[in-house]
Amino acid sequence: MNKVTDNLHYTAVEVGDWDALMNHSIIHPVNKQKVEGKIFLKSDLNATGTEISFNMLPPNTELPYFHFHHKNEETYVIIKGRGQFQVDNDCFNISAGSVIRVAPEGIRGLRNTSNKPLIYMVIQSKENSLEEYSTDDGERIEWSRVW
Amino acid sequence: MNKVTDNLHYTAVEVGDWDALMNHSIIHPVNKQKVEGKIFLKSDLNATGTEISFNMLPPNTELPYFHFHHKNEETYVIIKGRGQFQVDNDCFNISAGSVIRVAPEGIRGLRNTSNKPLIYMVIQSKENSLEEYSTDDGERIEWSRVW
Repeated sequence: MNKVTDNLHYTAVEVGDWDALMNHSIIHPVNKQKVEGKIFLKSDLNATGTEISFNMLPPNTELPYFHFHHKNEETYVIIKGRGQFQVDNDCFNISAGSVIRVAPEGIRGLRNTSNKPLIYMVIQSKENSLEEYSTDDGERIEWSRVW
Repeated sequence: MNKVTDNLHYTAVEVGDWDALMNHSIIHPVNKQKVEGKIFLKSDLNATGTEISFNMLPPNTELPYFHFHHKNEETYVIIKGRGQFQVDNDCFNISAGSVIRVAPEGIRGLRNTSNKPLIYMVIQSKENSLEEYSTDDGERIEWSRVW
């Protein structure tokens, strides 16, 4: 991953082509095993309100475990591929353009039911932390383009 | 957009194929004008910690204004296409896999420099709101697959 720039007001990184996510891996902080096809983007982005991860689940495989959270809401965004998602005892189909918000207590798992990689994002944020949103928090300003 | 399901623990929606984002539009809450190619996903997702929007900028166009925020960090994730992003007086190239976190004070704008639609997400969250992250907030649990 290539860090493009980093200053007080922004940080930009290049994750690279979605289909090359398999080239990324992390060492899992709990069991110290290597997990391929996964990027956690918090420290690299200097993010303070959310943690984004990009994930690749190989064809016809499933996550090895179900999990829930204590404080954080998770939102899953399916970028490419097809599969199934389970929360508690509900199971439903997912594909590119599926977006699933899961409350901390929801017990969640997913699997790839296709012959192609399943590429998805997970966004962690603290439940009930957002106060202003849509355009309420933003303000337009006259500014010169440098492009 | 199709809401798949909605209960206490999760909400799932279908945004649909990325290339069909142009079929979505919002009425801008400030100027009441129709903005095409944009979806704000907070109430539909019952989200409480983040607001995600999906956006399509047509070929060779730019956002009509620059803006900053008061409380919220924004993270831009480029899903498809090519363009340029400006924060304050810095300008850099973006393409699929570019991820840019912008602090509230950063003055931001972007443009599509290609002949294809620029598809991107924006994630709003309150600055400094995330406490636990990565795997610290999650806990594995034995659970039965229903797939």
